[in-house]
Amino acid sequence: MSAPLGAGVSADELPMRDALRGRSPYGAPQLDVAVRLNTNENPHPPSAALIDDVAESIRGAAGALHRYPDRDAVALRTDLAAYLTGRTGVRVGPENVWAANGSNEILQHLLQAFGGPGRTALGFEPSYSMHPIISAGTDTTWIEGKRAEDFSLDLDAALATIVECRPDVVFVTSPNNPTGHSIPTEQLTAILDAATGIVVVDEAYGEFSRRPSAIALLDRYPAKLVVTRTMSKAFAFAGGRLGYLVAAPAVIETMLLVRLPYHLSVVTQTAARAALRHAEETLATVTALSAQRDRVAVTLSELGFRVLPSDANFLLFGRFADAPGTWQRYLDRGVLIRDVGIPGYLRATVGLTAENDVFLDVSAELAATEVIR
Amino acid sequence: MSAPLGAGVSADELPMRDALRGRSPYGAPQLDVAVRLNTNENPHPPSAALIDDVAESIRGAAGALHRYPDRDAVALRTDLAAYLTGRTGVRVGPENVWAANGSNEILQHLLQAFGGPGRTALGFEPSYSMHPIISAGTDTTWIEGKRAEDFSLDLDAALATIVECRPDVVFVTSPNNPTGHSIPTEQLTAILDAATGIVVVDEAYGEFSRRPSAIALLDRYPAKLVVTRTMSKAFAFAGGRLGYLVAAPAVIETMLLVRLPYHLSVVTQTAARAALRHAEETLATVTALSAQRDRVAVTLSELGFRVLPSDANFLLFGRFADAPGTWQRYLDRGVLIRDVGIPGYLRATVGLTAENDVFLDVSAELAATEVIR
Repeated sequence: MSAPLGAGVSADELPMRDALRGRSPYGAPQLDVAVRLNTNENPHPPSAALIDDVAESIRGAAGALHRYPDRDAVALRTDLAAYLTGRTGVRVGPENVWAANGSNEILQHLLQAFGGPGRTALGFEPSYSMHPIISAGTDTTWIEGKRAEDFSLDLDAALATIVECRPDVVFVTSPNNPTGHSIPTEQLTAILDAATGIVVVDEAYGEFSRRPSAIALLDRYPAKLVVTRTMSKAFAFAGGRLGYLVAAPAVIETMLLVRLPYHLSVVTQTAARAALRHAEETLATVTALSAQRDRVAVTLSELGFRVLPSDANFLLFGRFADAPGTWQRYLDRGVLIRDVGIPGYLRATVGLTAENDVFLDVSAELAATEVIR
Repeated sequence: MSAPLGAGVSADELPMRDALRGRSPYGAPQLDVAVRLNTNENPHPPSAALIDDVAESIRGAAGALHRYPDRDAVALRTDLAAYLTGRTGVRVGPENVWAANGSNEILQHLLQAFGGPGRTALGFEPSYSMHPIISAGTDTTWIEGKRAEDFSLDLDAALATIVECRPDVVFVTSPNNPTGHSIPTEQLTAILDAATGIVVVDEAYGEFSRRPSAIALLDRYPAKLVVTRTMSKAFAFAGGRLGYLVAAPAVIETMLLVRLPYHLSVVTQTAARAALRHAEETLATVTALSAQRDRVAVTLSELGFRVLPSDANFLLFGRFADAPGTWQRYLDRGVLIRDVGIPGYLRATVGLTAENDVFLDVSAELAATEVIR
């Protein structure tokens, strides 16, 4: 075998932006492991009915694959609006919804519109790691707000930072990944009252939460509030890549100025609409997962772990003297969880009952040697 | 009906970036017209075999829709590499290929890596209008190079601009949209020799061209040359949204630093692989389209239009005293073509034989009143 085409040049020799030099690609390891509890997916596979609906809907749409898709994805946005209206009781219309290839692209669109060079975005860390990464990718200056010692939101500190820095974009993740906390409505309205820019409430795990969606506040804060959501988590559609946001129609109009034309394919629009038709059945798994979450949390606590209270489908737990080492020992035993970079802690997604059993067995084995107080 | 949720705020009141204020969304009108010759799609619909392959492949993959897709899309990139190797004779491997949701996202990835604030991108206009738009979207300063009077590339002027401005990115579109010209290899190597940054050869219409692909030059210019392509045109897969680039492995590694994780869905990866399996059958339509292009060009010339020589699946023709008005008169007669903003000219995609007949009939009718010398 000769060397691959063009293999003689290294990335270092390319004229890439300075900010990218020496960086590593983002992303959890994609490993072929029996028990995968690392990316907060819904572990329940799609039903036969959903699979059939996706395949047959795409068969019906595929005759037009040679044509560009509906650039504004109106039918999909209409279906998403109907789902949200049914779920929240707030009358959401298609003019309130924007959709993209995963909530990452939604966040990128928001920062392309409201962030950028000379602008700032604030988040309260630890939180979803893509918020600072996409901010950097859009040349938005990141302001790292801190959470309280117990990883809950420190409202006074948050308000003080907002007043002092006047960020163009504030990210509030609720429930927060990777800590599991969700934010009470009165704290959210305090942030909305203090903010001078856009407040993005990231509800990627919203369907798991006991609290009402921030969508209920849109009528009161139309010029400030954007609620982002995804079909990757409770909706069991991570492979379909469909994120969306809910906001005032003026925000949606602004998204049209920054999106790449035809960003959503015919197959994505069609598959997502099929998945939405099975929402009731899919979201029935949320109750089971919440019960599993509570079971896993109780058992971990009984084993001596410190477990953070979670309003989502994952648990942050510890404490470990060497979290990366402990992560590896879980992996050695066939359980893939997530090292999110918080010293002393690891994150585990709530899986199927049998997966959780394996995770708890391994946790019981490791508790004796790994856990510190 | 009450007003939509949040309708009280207008886009003007939102704190969007100044550069976006007053802008309109990009995109050709999506109109329901009998003869659509406006977006350079392949007018031949997918075969029954291709539709079945897409639907059944997605049925096979849909059981894992609850899981994130392969973040690096290795199987798809392997298939694209095999296609390119067969097509060009150059041994392309998956480490030479990057894929995204349409070539627009490919171009965005390139500018996120090699453009950005304080950096410049050069193109030779009129050319693909998304080059300056995506440059603006990534805060890359656009340098507008000019083509010759006949819209062919003015090599001396191009080289002078490159030497003077030392752009970080140079776009060379070949065949060029909307003019139809492709660039001779010796002109391209002259540009590559002069360039100090990255040279992006946009071969969106490459399969239609009589000239060899610039991929043949990759071995000679691994640190400079990037060739972008799409499945939207000859491949009749505009609805599937699959663009790709071919470059040295170091360029692909750099793309991993800027892409959003999991940017390509399971359905997109699966559908594109199915479409690639039918490449031979799909690309057989290219010969027919080229023959139709030549027929339409000859007839338009005979009718008194000025027709630019085209190496692609569209024709730029004129001249008109009022191109927007003429565009409307085509539309009034059921033929949707494209006003690309070049004074005196319009662009028409080559369609099916019957569509071209309608287009030529309308052109004959309009020639008497619209054409100027």
